[in-house]
This record gives sequence, C-alpha cells and structure tokens, in this order.
Amino acid sequence: MPLPVPVLPEGVDPAWLPPAAFRAIGGRRTLIRGSAPLVETVHGEVVQACRRFGGRVVRGAPDGGAYDLALALGAEGPEPLGEEGFTCAREGGTTTVTASGGRGLLYGLFHVVRLGDDAFRGERAREVHRPALALRMLDHWDNVAVHPVMGQVERGYAGGSLFWRDGSARGELDRVRAYGRLLAACGINAVSVNNVNVHAAEARLLTDRIGEVADIAAALRPYGIRTHLSVSFAAPVTLGGLPTADPLDGAVRDWWAGATRRVYEAIPDFGGYVVKADSEGQPGPFAYGRSHAEGANLLAAALEPFGGTVHWRAFVYDHRQDWRDRTTDRARAAYDHFVPLDGEFAEQAVLQVKHGPMDFQVREPVSPLIGAMPRTRLAVELQATQEYTGQQRHVCWLGPMWSGVLRFRHEHDQSVGELARGGLVAVSNAGGDPFWTGHPLAQANLYTFGRLAWQPDAEPRAVLDEWIKLSFPAAPPQLADGLHAVLDGSWRTYEKYTAPLGVGFMVQPGHHYGPSVDGYEYSPWGTYHFADRDGIGVDRSVATGTGYAGQYPKPWAELYESPDTCPDELLLFFHHVPYGHVLKSGKTVIQHIYDTHFEGVEEVEEARSVWASLAGLVDPARHARVAERYEEQLRGAREWRDQVNSYFFRKSGVPDGRGRRIC
Amino acid sequence: MPLPVPVLPEGVDPAWLPPAAFRAIGGRRTLIRGSAPLVETVHGEVVQACRRFGGRVVRGAPDGGAYDLALALGAEGPEPLGEEGFTCAREGGTTTVTASGGRGLLYGLFHVVRLGDDAFRGERAREVHRPALALRMLDHWDNVAVHPVMGQVERGYAGGSLFWRDGSARGELDRVRAYGRLLAACGINAVSVNNVNVHAAEARLLTDRIGEVADIAAALRPYGIRTHLSVSFAAPVTLGGLPTADPLDGAVRDWWAGATRRVYEAIPDFGGYVVKADSEGQPGPFAYGRSHAEGANLLAAALEPFGGTVHWRAFVYDHRQDWRDRTTDRARAAYDHFVPLDGEFAEQAVLQVKHGPMDFQVREPVSPLIGAMPRTRLAVELQATQEYTGQQRHVCWLGPMWSGVLRFRHEHDQSVGELARGGLVAVSNAGGDPFWTGHPLAQANLYTFGRLAWQPDAEPRAVLDEWIKLSFPAAPPQLADGLHAVLDGSWRTYEKYTAPLGVGFMVQPGHHYGPSVDGYEYSPWGTYHFADRDGIGVDRSVATGTGYAGQYPKPWAELYESPDTCPDELLLFFHHVPYGHVLKSGKTVIQHIYDTHFEGVEEVEEARSVWASLAGLVDPARHARVAERYEEQLRGAREWRDQVNSYFFRKSGVPDGRGRRIC
Repeated sequence: MPLPVPVLPEGVDPAWLPPAAFRAIGGRRTLIRGSAPLVETVHGEVVQACRRFGGRVVRGAPDGGAYDLALALGAEGPEPLGEEGFTCAREGGTTTVTASGGRGLLYGLFHVVRLGDDAFRGERAREVHRPALALRMLDHWDNVAVHPVMGQVERGYAGGSLFWRDGSARGELDRVRAYGRLLAACGINAVSVNNVNVHAAEARLLTDRIGEVADIAAALRPYGIRTHLSVSFAAPVTLGGLPTADPLDGAVRDWWAGATRRVYEAIPDFGGYVVKADSEGQPGPFAYGRSHAEGANLLAAALEPFGGTVHWRAFVYDHRQDWRDRTTDRARAAYDHFVPLDGEFAEQAVLQVKHGPMDFQVREPVSPLIGAMPRTRLAVELQATQEYTGQQRHVCWLGPMWSGVLRFRHEHDQSVGELARGGLVAVSNAGGDPFWTGHPLAQANLYTFGRLAWQPDAEPRAVLDEWIKLSFPAAPPQLADGLHAVLDGSWRTYEKYTAPLGVGFMVQPGHHYGPSVDGYEYSPWGTYHFADRDGIGVDRSVATGTGYAGQYPKPWAELYESPDTCPDELLLFFHHVPYGHVLKSGKTVIQHIYDTHFEGVEEVEEARSVWASLAGLVDPARHARVAERYEEQLRGAREWRDQVNSYFFRKSGVPDGRGRRIC
Repeated sequence: MPLPVPVLPEGVDPAWLPPAAFRAIGGRRTLIRGSAPLVETVHGEVVQACRRFGGRVVRGAPDGGAYDLALALGAEGPEPLGEEGFTCAREGGTTTVTASGGRGLLYGLFHVVRLGDDAFRGERAREVHRPALALRMLDHWDNVAVHPVMGQVERGYAGGSLFWRDGSARGELDRVRAYGRLLAACGINAVSVNNVNVHAAEARLLTDRIGEVADIAAALRPYGIRTHLSVSFAAPVTLGGLPTADPLDGAVRDWWAGATRRVYEAIPDFGGYVVKADSEGQPGPFAYGRSHAEGANLLAAALEPFGGTVHWRAFVYDHRQDWRDRTTDRARAAYDHFVPLDGEFAEQAVLQVKHGPMDFQVREPVSPLIGAMPRTRLAVELQATQEYTGQQRHVCWLGPMWSGVLRFRHEHDQSVGELARGGLVAVSNAGGDPFWTGHPLAQANLYTFGRLAWQPDAEPRAVLDEWIKLSFPAAPPQLADGLHAVLDGSWRTYEKYTAPLGVGFMVQPGHHYGPSVDGYEYSPWGTYHFADRDGIGVDRSVATGTGYAGQYPKPWAELYESPDTCPDELLLFFHHVPYGHVLKSGKTVIQHIYDTHFEGVEEVEEARSVWASLAGLVDPARHARVAERYEEQLRGAREWRDQVNSYFFRKSGVPDGRGRRIC
C-alpha cells in the first residue's frame, strides 16, 4: 500500500518540496518495483505526483507499456550501494533508478525530483550515488518544558518546537512526518529530538516518557530517519535512584543496559544517545574521577547490542574562567582534553566536535581536534540555527562557511569531510514556524546542510541553485538570480558588519543578538578580544601566546604562528596586533574595521533593494516576511556598524581614512 | 480592648523591635488614657511588654498608684500637635506622653521605646515632636503575578512580596501587621502595595480585586498606615471598556469618580493613587495630546471628595534615545517636561520626583526640578531597595546620601526636606525574606528612611546608632562600634569601587548587578559616559554641553558650570575631562579611579574582618547571613575594581602611579 504523503497544515510553507517540484515525474509514467517499507513511501510520493499532474504509476510487474521512469529495488550492480546508495541512468527513453535498500530508492526518487525534466532528456550514463557520510544528523535543542531562560527551544528562532509544547509532546505527527520528508529530500537521516542540556522533564524521555519519543520515531521512519535522544549522564541517579552515576560501577552499567533495552523495545531502530557531559554545568564522569572515554564507553556498551551509537560532545571547557588570566585559552580546551584519550573510545562511541574551537562564531579556524584523533570516530557539529549569525532575522547563508570547513585539509591530506567518519551534525534551525525556519531564506541553510552531509565536497553555490530551483519552481531568471544574489554573499556581508577578522563574541550577553563589543570581554566564558588603545586580538602563537597555534599540524601551525602568514580573516583570532598593522589587503586593521562595517551595511541595503525588486515574483506572504526581516537586518547592521566603529574610534583615536562620520 | 501585638512567624527576624527593646517600659508601671482605635494598639504593646518583663499597665482612670509612664490622649498643649504629634516630659518620677490623636500616641510610645531607660531617669523638659512631612511613604514595586522578566518584586532583593504570591494575595496578614508595626516604629505612615509598572493582573486591584487591598489596609491600619495603590492610566479602557482614557473626556472622569468611590467604600481611609504615566512604556495622557497636569488632575478630582491624593511620578524621559545623539540629555528631561506645568496641578495632586535627575545611581546631583516648582506639591522619591547600590548583597547604608539630598538647599534657601511638601517616598527594600530585607544590615536603610522622613534634618549617624541600639539591645561597645563602623562609611565604600566621580550606569544591563563599564554606553536609555582614549564624562555645561547645569538656580548653576568649581564627586556628571585632569584632591582623574577602586576593595576587606570579629556577639543566624554576603560583596568589589581599572587602563594607557597590577 502506498504511504500517503503527509498533508501540511493550512498556511505551512512547502519549503523545497512544493507540488510543482514533482511536475516532471507526475506527468509521466513510472514503474516501481521491489518490496520494503520505504518503497511504500516512494510509491506514495509518485502516486500523489501523478494525481496532481496526470501521470501514471505501476507497482510490481511491468504492464507491457513503456515507462519514463523505473524505480527498482534489489538490482545490485558491480559496486555495493549499501542501504542508502542508488544508481541513476537513462537509456531507450527510460530513466532507471536502482537501489539495494528502501532508503536508497527514496534518495533516488528525490534525485530525480531535483533533476526535474532534465532526468528525462536524452541518454544518461549510469551514475552511482552514495552518501560520503553514513550519519547526517540534526540535533534539536528543543526543550520539552519551557525553560525559564532558554524557552521552548534553546537558541531557537523559528517559533516553538516541532515535537514539544509546554511540557508535553505536541502530538502534531503529520507535521513531524512532513519535516522528515523535507529532511529526506536533502539527505538527512537522523534527528535528535531534545536539547543537549537535559533538564528534569527532558531526562524522563529516556524512561517513562519513551513512548512520546517512539511516536516521533514512527512519524520519521517512513522517510528513512532514525531518532536519537539527548540523555543526562546523571540519569542513573536522578531517574534510577542509584547513589552514583560512576561509569565503572556495575549497577550503573546495568541500569544503562536495562534502560537502553527498554528504549529499543519501544523504538527498534533507535539511533542512539547524544551527551553533553561536564560542560556548562551538565553532569559528567569528572564527578567520579573518570575520563570522558570511560563515560562515553559506558553508554556505548549499553547501545552496542542494538547497533546504536553514543554521540559524545567534545564541547568541554572551563566556563568559569578568570578573565584576568591570559594563559588559559578556551580555544585549546577540547584538544587538550580529548587528544590524550585517542584510541580509548569504543567503536559505538562517536566524539562530536564543533567545527571551530570556540562556539559557532561567524569566523573561526577549523578545530585542530578534528585532525588529531585518528583512532576515534569523530562527528563534526555545525550550527544551522543562527545563534551568532543573525538569529534568522538576518540573511546569512552558511553554505560557504560550512564548505570551507569540510574542505579544510588536516594532516595526511584528509579533509574534514573525510575525517568526519562519525557523521556530520547540525543544530537544527527548524521549528513550528509556518516557514519552518523563521526567516524563509534560512531554509537554504537547512537544505545546504543536508546536501553537504551527503557530499561534503559539493560546490555550495550549486547546492544553493538547487535549493532555488526546487523551492521556486519555474522561477524566471530575474528571481533565480535575485535569490542567488541575496544569499550567496550573505555570510561575508554578515561578517563584515559584525566582529572583525576572526575575533568573535562581540555580542550582547545572554541572548547573543546585536552588538556589545565588550559584552563578553570581562566574563567567565573565555571569550576575549583584549582591545586596548594600541591594538586588539588574542595572541595564540606558540612563541609568545597561549600556544593554540601549535595544536595544528604543519603547514597550519606555521602559517597561523606568524601574523605575516596568518590569513587576514583569522588574524585577530591568532594574534594581538596594533591598529596600524597592515593586512595582506594593504589596509591597516583599523581602516579594515571601518571599511568593512560601512560596506556591510551598504551590502544589506543593496540586498534589501534586490529583494524589493522581486515583489510579484515571490508569493506575497513569503515576500512580506523577508521584506520585514530585511528592515530589522538593516537596523541591526547599522547598529553593529556604529557601535563597532565608535568603539574602535574612541579607543584607537584613529580617524577614518575616508572621513566618514563616526560618533 | 488592647490589640494583640502581631506574632511573628517562626524564624522571622524582629528587626528593630526585638522583645528586649521594650524592657524599659515592660518592667515599669504605665497608665494609658484616652479612647481611639490606635490607643488599643498602644495598650496592646504595653500589655505585651509588661507580660514579658513583669510591669503593670492601667487603662483609663489612675488607680491611685504612682506611674512611671503615662500615655494620654487629648491633652492638647499650647501648640497644635495634629494627628501625629506628641509631647514628652518627665516630672516627679513620671514620664508623660501626650497626643491629640491615636497615631501621635503610638509614635510617642515608640519614642519612649527608643529612649529606653533614659526615658525614666531624672527630669525631662517638655518636648514637642511633630513630623516635618505629613506623608512618609513606602512604594512597593511588588507584582501580584510573577512578571516574566521582573519576577514577583521588581528590583526586589528580599525574597518574595509581603502582599502577593503567584497572582494571588499572599494572605499572611499577621506578617503584614508586623511589617506595619516596624514601619510605625520608625515613623512611616503610608504604603503603596503594588508596582508602579501596572500589568494586567495588578490593574484589577483597583476594581474587582479591591477587596485584597482592603485586607492589607485593615492589617496596616492599627499601626497608623494608610494604603495606596498604583493604577494604570489606561484603566478606563482596559478595565472600564471605554474607548478612551482621555483625561478631558466626561465618561473617563465619571469612570474614575465611580471607581474611586468604590475604593473608598472598601477602604475608607485609602491614601490615594500612585501613577507612572508616559514612562518606560506605561500609558499616559500624551496619547490624547493632554499634559501631565491634566492627567494628574483627572485622578486628583476623583480622589478629592475623599481626601485622597494622587502621586504622579515625574520620571518621564525618552527611553528610546539614539546614543549617537549627544544633544539629547536624559538628565534634563523631568525639568524640561514639568517646570512649564508649575501651578497647573490640583491641590490633591503630588508630583513625585526622584531625588536625582537620572535613576538612583550611587552618586547624582540633586534634581533641579525639586527647587523649580514652587506652586506644586512635590514629593521626593528615594530608593531603599538597592537596585544600583549592591542589591542587598553589598552593605550600603544610604543614610548619608539621603541626608545630603534632604539638606541640599535650593533657591530661597529652602532645603529639599522643606520643599518636599508632598512627602518623602522610598521604594521599599522589604519582602518575605526572614530578615525582611535580604541583607540583615539593609534593615538600617529602611529604618533610616522612616526617621529622615519624620525629621529630614536629623543627623543620619545618630539615626544609625538609634537603629543599632534598638536592634541589638544591650549591645556591648565592641558590637555597637563594630556595627557603626561597617555601616557608617559603606556608601562611600560602595561608591569607591563602582562608577567613579558621578558618572553612573556602569552596570550590567537588565539586572543592574555587577560591573559592565560599557553596559549602557550604546543603549537607548540615555545613560552614557563617553569615555574615549583621551577622557571621560558628560558635558552638561551651558557653555559647551547639554545645558543641564543651567537648570539649577545660583549658586549651583555657576558652581556646576565649570570643572574648576564643580565638586569632585560630581565632576564626570557635569563635565567631559581628560584623564589627566587634576581634581581638587590633587590627583588626576585616572589616578583617582585607580586609587578609589583599590581603596574600596580594601575597605570591604576591613569591614568583613570587623564583622568576623563580632561572631559570638550577634545571633548566629544573622551573623552567618551577613558573613556570607560579605564574601559575595568582596568578590563583587574585586570584580568591579578589576573591570573598571582594566577598562580605563586599556583605554587611557596611563599606568597606575603606584605600580599596582592592572590587567
């Protein structure tokens, strides 16, 4: 029986799967062969498309007619396709997609959707598509109960949670299925359904509230998505009533084994656990004098019989640092902490590492930890939710930043995309908002993440155009070009009008929106720029600084070590330099600050007017929402420009070389 | 029937009315004469004292015996005593207190309590005591419902509210009576029971929830305290369903008249309304193109038939100011706004003016508005709750600051204490905390406020010693001296380690606790210091600045106009000067900043050790609470010192003249 496509609630945006995206398939004749649960999903998709566009679908044996499209399970070729791979070819007027598993067939279907009419023209040589990374995951920082400070979704800018509301499961499973469908269409295959900061209500999802997780898992399963759960390391104490959560304690091991067995009874394809331990106040193995490998292996052992994994976050640092102490460097923390543990993690334990050494700033170097643990499965964590990049009120398409991270080559000439054997993870930017992501254009981030997780060396601008083509079917060139124009450079634009040259954290404390140059300067969070009247930046060199640059292999260690060779965009991350220091661009640091901040605002003004010119080409609700957010972005960009420029003008005393007014 | 003294709940501190404070009276023979409700209160007090200490009390006609103390109503002397005045004399072994009203007799009783055994020694010439100010009021910024940002008590640092909890009346009326008793003992005679920011639940106290206010009024009445209510100017719309709240609209006037009549039906001695209008988002007459006099007179007219007054706050300024605009000066706002309205306010309207032009900073000049409205009844508002002065985690006895304000002489040689014809008001620092005020030593602020409201030219240090004597009966000299030592200079100490030289607002945004030198520098709140690499301060001179100095009469206008004559402690409030500017003290501004910040911390260390030396002399619970808060104060003072010194060292580049380490 074909599985019906989920119906979107009234007013909810179809994102990159509008009905018209299925026109090419829906108007043709399709044969579907094979038997597996996800084949029913594929069948349902084609049935709905044909219903809308007048095509035909045949299931099982061919009926003797000619088919434009054949979607067939089981036809293994010379190379193993695995559960998720597929082939695509066109010959004799028929486009054939084959896969050895249901998920592969579903991904093949969405591949044809992306190709559109191109899939049905001429001949196509047989192509094999397989995901580079087996795990392509979204972590939801959703709380079950509304947190007094962080709300329903921590760092959420897209309305409420898709899963939870006011302490209960939201129960809108059709919306969850529709979400799963969107994720499958860009290649995502795992979702963790609750915040890594696990509070009291959320902790119980593991035990007596597992049924609520099972409902979500059931809704996501038809789209090939496995469900994961953030758990509290202290669960044996807080939920199990044990006197300890010591990972070497037998009763603790038994408790986790039993709890995990019951999870799998409820969710047979459960993906595993996500754990934030000994980090920003969360409990962890340190309390028992145990290492993080011992902590992670405890959960890995419980998951191992069922094939699950634990994603153990490497985000461990001293968040009660003394700002007066310039020798402690938060950037060093993950490397210093975890590299000595390389080789000690069990196979079912994945160490989940943020892509940069700090915390999702608009510009950071790639974390040196990623290349430094060859005997450990690593996952790399990105942040789709725009905590530090405009909070979905500003357009900031992160594709180029993520691509830069994934293509960065560590030692042994392996790229980050290759090193991320444990998968690519992003903190989700989606929520109950009718546009899914608050800012309609932030959908491009979610889509791009999925596609880069499938193929880390993909060209991000091609992915962007793919998203445009899907989301705005049959867009006239003016619209497609306009969308590309306002998104493509938006990350650089955002960087220009915010914190300069890699220095980071010039945001308002707490909510992290809007500028406060000294907001985190005298804080315990390890986030400093050390600006004084003479210069700015953090000396992280080996020779005179914190030594962080030495955590990289060559050539990076040497490159970052000297201000002469350090790339401009990371200069203040690695070095404290005078305002008069001349960049490779030929400008002084201070003039660079002034210029980029003026330019950033001008670029927002330009993007806003491009968007205004697209009125009439975009549906009115979406156009209005984006137009309204551009007003806020422009206001915000001007505020950033003026606060940053005034701060550095007051501090440096250096007038703008172009004589512009700085307060 | 004598009214029983309220019983304190278990564990609640007796503050300045411990049983032993009544020893002198309770061990003697007292005659009470006269009939009035408050005479029953007096009788109850003496009965309880005698029960405890073995004395005797006779009510009505003398029984032929000799009396140590006679408390008599009705014996009017040559000068009118009014409802609140009393005389005290001692002759022939009897101390006699007379009053023409019950409240006077109650105040006379507490006068004898303060005198203790001294009241019963030798002869005492007849003294007349009358309050200088008819209204001595506490404004509670208590919310009925817990506000999502501000909580149960806005700027409350003493636990929950005494009146409200989670949307309902707290109903602990014995605690409210005990509170009233403490207030009466220091001379306070009015309490406003809800926050000046009137949210939805609070607005209804005026109408269908007036019964809850009446319960509080009934509990406070036996101690001579009238109850007031903060109301929303928009009430005719939000509660009355009218289309407008225009003060000149007949239906609006009728609505207020009717609502007020019903208030007096519930509370016949109701004091009146408190209104924050057109301020920080509260509604007001501006919406209808009416003046604040027209707004205030609307409510005054409704209250007039019943003898109530409206306290109309003068805290009106632009809280959405552009920080780039240096011509707008928040300090000017109240004067600019209200002086043109002088003479237009009705007799029952009192304009309630904050003592300084900004907002309760640790150092501000006295508001020039106070001397500039001779035809308007003014009340002066102080802040006992320590929003900007350590939030009751730091010891900061405000007596000297308040006394300085009250003794400040405006035009016509009248002091602020004399100009405050509409009363003295303080934002209360009391709450449900077992010590009433969070920090046990913050009780001294509450007590001092009451005594200064009674006698604005009182010597604050004498009031402090009075508080010590009452609160720590029979304290050995070491204890009395120690308490005096840690409190007396504490305001100056707090000033030293926080914002220097009158500049203000270097606090963390939102909660206002702890340092953030630039926290309000680029904000819309009108709160700037304009520090750059060369200097700091706000030019408020007439010649080159915002002109604020010209709002004062001579000699102040001239004195403040020039940095040469401006008092050091207000220099940065009135002038922008280079860091090298030499103060009258002979120090440069920058060296003054460094020195005071080091000194401030040293003074806290000294106070902490004085307190430590008092262990064993103070009851353990109180000693522990204060000791614990000294740890936080010291931590906080060091943080203030280091952030402020580092900020100015980084900005100015001037090293400390004494070579101390600054990060």
